[in-house]
Amino acid sequence: MKTLRVPEATVTRLSIYSRYLERLDRNGVTTVSSGEIAEGVGVSPAQVRKDLAYFGEFGTRGVGYNVKDLMRYTKKILGLDHNWPLILVGAGNLGYALCTYKGFNSRGFKIVGVFDNDLTKIGKRINELEVLPMEKMPDVIKEHGVKIGIVATPNRAAQEVATYMVKNGIQAVLNFAPLPLNLPEHIEVRNVDLSVKLEILTFNLGFKSAQNV
Amino acid sequence: MKTLRVPEATVTRLSIYSRYLERLDRNGVTTVSSGEIAEGVGVSPAQVRKDLAYFGEFGTRGVGYNVKDLMRYTKKILGLDHNWPLILVGAGNLGYALCTYKGFNSRGFKIVGVFDNDLTKIGKRINELEVLPMEKMPDVIKEHGVKIGIVATPNRAAQEVATYMVKNGIQAVLNFAPLPLNLPEHIEVRNVDLSVKLEILTFNLGFKSAQNV
Repeated sequence: MKTLRVPEATVTRLSIYSRYLERLDRNGVTTVSSGEIAEGVGVSPAQVRKDLAYFGEFGTRGVGYNVKDLMRYTKKILGLDHNWPLILVGAGNLGYALCTYKGFNSRGFKIVGVFDNDLTKIGKRINELEVLPMEKMPDVIKEHGVKIGIVATPNRAAQEVATYMVKNGIQAVLNFAPLPLNLPEHIEVRNVDLSVKLEILTFNLGFKSAQNV
Repeated sequence: MKTLRVPEATVTRLSIYSRYLERLDRNGVTTVSSGEIAEGVGVSPAQVRKDLAYFGEFGTRGVGYNVKDLMRYTKKILGLDHNWPLILVGAGNLGYALCTYKGFNSRGFKIVGVFDNDLTKIGKRINELEVLPMEKMPDVIKEHGVKIGIVATPNRAAQEVATYMVKNGIQAVLNFAPLPLNLPEHIEVRNVDLSVKLEILTFNLGFKSAQNV
């Protein structure tokens, strides 16, 4: 398993399928077809089958997939069969929003440390967490075995913060600052650019108005 | 042009190429190859060429692309050859973070109205904007010709807010609440699930540790 190189778009969709399966499971649905998954998340049935085929054989022809099994399996593939402790740097509005974001907990992500170098922020509480000075980061990473760090700082601080994270054992960085980070090859980095999805909307609005001309 | 159905993944990459081209342009770079774009954004050169081919012929074999022309053209395709006024509902931490997010302005997105139904939030200022009660939304939409609305409310309010937006003329919704919205077919909706990118990281961390076993 996982010997093929899996395209990132497939992993993204797997994450979305997995969430949809959780919802079906909560609603008591026990079996689902690729066509239903496709319609539920807005892709083609062939795409669903192709994406799942990267990871083995699922489902029974004419019967479909067992919701609970496929949900568990997709979560396992995504590494979500256990919880992930996270650290976050930047206790600004975005940092607060991320610390209180309901969508993390439900997928097993738990922010265990929030850091800032702003003396007016250190010591404040976000839910049950106290904002800590940067120099406490190494201890928190060790104590909780944290592998993933979130950068939610202003642009000017992002690179320095990410470098410090990596120096202290962080292996993967989720970057919310809208600029690219320069980190060693073996570190996994993903940027969350909040305007990319807006541009899909503007593309589609432009497409529609062109058709109406 | 735009007669082929363009895959959403292509539009997403186009948005990323376009940002990369802006950066090159700011740095004074005048020509770029598909290989350089590919390396700069982390996809294959063939992917770059295939994506751009949806929109016509670009570049000169052996010379590459003119950075400024391709940047302008990608922005035009994405509908970014003019500014887009936006409204946002939900003046919580996420709403504040989005209102002050640098990545919007630089792509021509400008939030022109922020709304909430919480009396403790109405009247507060976020930068130059005053948080307005929901009933002011129709006027703001009309005054600025707003087509895109952002939902940054708690889950329980998201559907009602989105329905109200659409009733008042909004044509596209960017939804940050981690639940699906039920809106008319002709409305463009995209969900921003902040944990999807985290799951790409956990997938890749799992993949690496499996290889090391």
